[in-house]
Amino acid sequence: MEQKSNYPVPDILPAPTLSRLPGYLAYVSLLKEEGVEYVSSTQISKEINVDASMIAKDLSFLNIKGKTRIGYEVATLEHKLQEFLGFKRGHNAVLIGVGSLGGSLIQDSGLVKYGLRIVAGFDVREDLIGSSICGVPIYDMAEFGRLIRTLDAGIGIIAVPMDMAQKVCDEIVEAGIRALWNFTPMRIKAPAGIVVQDTSIYADLAVMYNRLDNIHR
Amino acid sequence: MEQKSNYPVPDILPAPTLSRLPGYLAYVSLLKEEGVEYVSSTQISKEINVDASMIAKDLSFLNIKGKTRIGYEVATLEHKLQEFLGFKRGHNAVLIGVGSLGGSLIQDSGLVKYGLRIVAGFDVREDLIGSSICGVPIYDMAEFGRLIRTLDAGIGIIAVPMDMAQKVCDEIVEAGIRALWNFTPMRIKAPAGIVVQDTSIYADLAVMYNRLDNIHR
Repeated sequence: MEQKSNYPVPDILPAPTLSRLPGYLAYVSLLKEEGVEYVSSTQISKEINVDASMIAKDLSFLNIKGKTRIGYEVATLEHKLQEFLGFKRGHNAVLIGVGSLGGSLIQDSGLVKYGLRIVAGFDVREDLIGSSICGVPIYDMAEFGRLIRTLDAGIGIIAVPMDMAQKVCDEIVEAGIRALWNFTPMRIKAPAGIVVQDTSIYADLAVMYNRLDNIHR
Repeated sequence: MEQKSNYPVPDILPAPTLSRLPGYLAYVSLLKEEGVEYVSSTQISKEINVDASMIAKDLSFLNIKGKTRIGYEVATLEHKLQEFLGFKRGHNAVLIGVGSLGGSLIQDSGLVKYGLRIVAGFDVREDLIGSSICGVPIYDMAEFGRLIRTLDAGIGIIAVPMDMAQKVCDEIVEAGIRALWNFTPMRIKAPAGIVVQDTSIYADLAVMYNRLDNIHR
């Protein structure tokens, strides 16, 4: 893994701040492509719908400060956000559960762009074991403990049926996985020191349905 | 769309509550399959890592109350959660942007299970227009305004490159879309009354990387 830059940044940023940073990066990258040299938090605010003072506060967490009346230098801002977010560093991951959602994740080349490389899939289904999707080999889950040692992957993506989620979590943590990206609706329990990130596509659907039903009835 | 049940439920629930409901539903459905008849919030709490008092509070929003010393009736709880979450009602959606992520979404049959049916895709790429993915036809984005009237879809899934997100949003809202499920890192602006749901897979990645780098260095 690359050396971190030497400006002091707090170890753990608030999750809401972290969640907004990719949006800033996206917009700033656009500006850079357009040849824009400076941008103010007010301009960013107008474009991406986040309060200007919140943008300034978020960026100050990374020790990024704009200049009075000039704003942020676009190239520097892009570089610092990229470096901080780790999208340029490669992170190897294994996928557990190569069903519909899991298969989709392997096929989403967007993940690679954001630094996530799925190096192998694991499943229990006979018809999947031994096959490959987009060049990613699918192995027998029973072989996980043995194969993970050869794969140099610290992240486990959990896309199994929900009733298997906790069992799979226990198994892969035992085998040395240090971060779990959980796509099941189950909240999984992991030992201290293991990172758990829930991505609940279906929970977001529930929120959207509720808003939609209530606004438009 | 189905009639709502007649017990009074507040119109708009807090998003964190809504986000937890699919997890409760997932667990309760498991219990029902196992033939369990009653469950307490303490049991749910142990299994899915959410505080028991928070579970009780979340469920009380839906006017679901457990019985002292018995708990919640599993079948009733499952039914009420399913009905409230709208996963059993069909919601038609169109997908704008049939790239890597968009294509993956069409292929994810999990969405159908949660009530979302993608009825058409739209793109500007000549090689995609006129093709179909898993039976879903891909149309020319230039035809959106005309075709949307025939499709009975209220939800637009935005999976275009980020620099197109706002333009696409304006266009489809103008054409009558009432809810936007935004998968780009851009925050999009929509008129009042339009539901916007952001699902930031890549923002979740940023949070996970940050935790991982800081816990394990």
